Amino acid sequence: MNDVALLDKWFAILDNIGVNDDGSTSRMGYTDVEDAMIAAVVKIGSEYGLKHCVDEVGNTFIYNGTGEGDYTLIGSHLDSVLQGGKFDGIAGVLAGMLILKKLQDEKLDIPVKVGIFRMEESSVFGIATVGSKLVTGNLTEASLKKATNADNTSLYDIMIGRGYKANPAKITKLKQYLELHIEQGRVLEVKGLTLGVVNSIAAPVRMWVKFTGNQDHSGATPMDLRKDSLVAAAELIVAVEQFGKAELANASVATVGIVRNTPNVFNVVPGETTLGIDIRGIDKASRERVLQNTEAKAQKIATEGGLGCSISRVSESDPVKLDDTLCAKLSKTAEKLGIAHLVMPSGAGHDAMNFTEICPVGMLFIPCKEGISHNKDELAKTEDIARGSDVLLEYLKNMKIKLYNHQNLS
Amino acid sequence: MNDVALLDKWFAILDNIGVNDDGSTSRMGYTDVEDAMIAAVVKIGSEYGLKHCVDEVGNTFIYNGTGEGDYTLIGSHLDSVLQGGKFDGIAGVLAGMLILKKLQDEKLDIPVKVGIFRMEESSVFGIATVGSKLVTGNLTEASLKKATNADNTSLYDIMIGRGYKANPAKITKLKQYLELHIEQGRVLEVKGLTLGVVNSIAAPVRMWVKFTGNQDHSGATPMDLRKDSLVAAAELIVAVEQFGKAELANASVATVGIVRNTPNVFNVVPGETTLGIDIRGIDKASRERVLQNTEAKAQKIATEGGLGCSISRVSESDPVKLDDTLCAKLSKTAEKLGIAHLVMPSGAGHDAMNFTEICPVGMLFIPCKEGISHNKDELAKTEDIARGSDVLLEYLKNMKIKLYNHQNLS
Repeated sequence: MNDVALLDKWFAILDNIGVNDDGSTSRMGYTDVEDAMIAAVVKIGSEYGLKHCVDEVGNTFIYNGTGEGDYTLIGSHLDSVLQGGKFDGIAGVLAGMLILKKLQDEKLDIPVKVGIFRMEESSVFGIATVGSKLVTGNLTEASLKKATNADNTSLYDIMIGRGYKANPAKITKLKQYLELHIEQGRVLEVKGLTLGVVNSIAAPVRMWVKFTGNQDHSGATPMDLRKDSLVAAAELIVAVEQFGKAELANASVATVGIVRNTPNVFNVVPGETTLGIDIRGIDKASRERVLQNTEAKAQKIATEGGLGCSISRVSESDPVKLDDTLCAKLSKTAEKLGIAHLVMPSGAGHDAMNFTEICPVGMLFIPCKEGISHNKDELAKTEDIARGSDVLLEYLKNMKIKLYNHQNLS
Repeated sequence: MNDVALLDKWFAILDNIGVNDDGSTSRMGYTDVEDAMIAAVVKIGSEYGLKHCVDEVGNTFIYNGTGEGDYTLIGSHLDSVLQGGKFDGIAGVLAGMLILKKLQDEKLDIPVKVGIFRMEESSVFGIATVGSKLVTGNLTEASLKKATNADNTSLYDIMIGRGYKANPAKITKLKQYLELHIEQGRVLEVKGLTLGVVNSIAAPVRMWVKFTGNQDHSGATPMDLRKDSLVAAAELIVAVEQFGKAELANASVATVGIVRNTPNVFNVVPGETTLGIDIRGIDKASRERVLQNTEAKAQKIATEGGLGCSISRVSESDPVKLDDTLCAKLSKTAEKLGIAHLVMPSGAGHDAMNFTEICPVGMLFIPCKEGISHNKDELAKTEDIARGSDVLLEYLKNMKIKLYNHQNLS
């Protein structure tokens, strides 16, 4: 069975787990569905003689050899957003499994662990990459207690209830961290490429901007007596788009994703409108410009219109640079294999970003159809996953050879 | 008991009916709550020896004398919007009741019927002034069958179930129609006036404008690869406000009251945004300009951004002029009573608008606090209701004298 056929077979197994009637998947982190996904991949691994272990927070590692020395960690996740797709996360785990399988086939002694990190998606508790954050010291027990779902149950209570710890030991013995992921954007597709080498991961600043005006009868209130909160919000939406576009060269992006309008009926001038804004960048200064411009513009609109305006930042994290040397090596490996590719930033966050303080981190993107992700139409080609996996394996083999050379020299 | 004390007493009785925990009222048309409101007012009338009758669609008329000859109809309604206030409609019915009571006290033979029209509010079925539309031939059986509530039950079925007819006889013997209503705007309050004489009633055109773009990952999609439906919608919101403002002198108003954004989350560029737009005016040409500008701008935004755009009109009715002579007489009466007032259009629709083809129609506004209506904070002064009622009664008395004069001359 060739690599593509094997990946198709594996996907066919996983495709039955946590699938909704409309074909979307709901595989929420720290649920039985996520457990079932992990068990299915562990079972695949066992067919090739691969062992596995589970850490204190429920992350699962499938590995070759004894699992005791230093190793390359190939990570990603098996959970999805609510009504998500079948490739986000899974592609990376199965790319890793393909590497492990081929290392077994070829009897190559390159220690690799495939890490399946818990709850990468933030749909339910508002925190992303939970499993990888916990074992890299990037998430506190207090944050787990503060994060609650719609039923007001904390993530802490759910983890403890499942027998996990909220203060795990830090992960050790990592030589490097590698991850393959679908791009979740349309850059590769637009450029007709099948591979991206990620050099940095953007981080979002998220904020709420609330405009408070006067809720008036839409028929009985002349235009000059209005304080329409939706008009104020609309002016800000248009401005945010411009602030983002002005930083195109620096790869910052600015999105008003959420609008909540009150009372949202035909015959009332809106009195309160709240916008949820997401500003990301890999260049912190560029991102800061968009942020400053947005906050200043919101205040200016409110002041000029006589409206109230409150701004609150929801979250803020720093963009991370991946390892230059590793990035260059992955790029060189792709070249060697004749795969045209693009060195590019990641606009989305990934488990990879949590490991940059611990070891060199490298990451590959493969295209997904029309950039669609986080819904049932998410679609990637197993050919592209296999090709990306090849690049990682080839890189590992070269590294191994160099390691031997180095050992021979010493 | 003076007029204000009497109105306060009547309001105190009605204030207990259909009241929610938060103090708002939910007195939906064609429900037991509306029935209870009507019964309470009928009971008040009976204390003054006033009779009542109910027409084929459930409108109730409380009257003096025999109720057989030509009469002046003083109309309004007792239903409310969902979570509405305590004055919208009620003020007009009680102003009429105060007139009937005083005609009884003074033993004046001026035939008056107070009309309590069913389901003036459109909250549940999307059709406003149902009772008065039906008896003036402005609403068809087909429309009643098409109008459904959230449970998909038609208004037709509800009316038939309550023993009413969908094809009632037209109301007859009307000499004139008078109505007092809260302004539901802030014009009188801003001008420091307690009375408005309404000369026209604006009518809305309502429409949905839907922009369809690309739903993309907000982190992974560069600014130049986006087709953000919310940005397109925001451009239209800003433009609609300007189109409305340009017609300030013609009293047209334009409101984007509704925005529905998909998927409305932080990390996705919006892919579909729908706006609900309400454009009103008393000057049809002015209203048409706003309408044309809005539709043209929506198409232009969509074309330039490469988005889809669909526009559908929900409803469209014509603005109506009230009776010039009657308006002038009401104005003169107010002057005679030393009440400073404004001749003004009504931005909101009222039962009054349905009678202009049948008889002369006149209407008075009284202020409501901060122009707030359709919610629990709706507040009008019983002093202002009593004062408005005085103007109507004084006008009726003068008309009576003239009628006698006329009869004497003949």
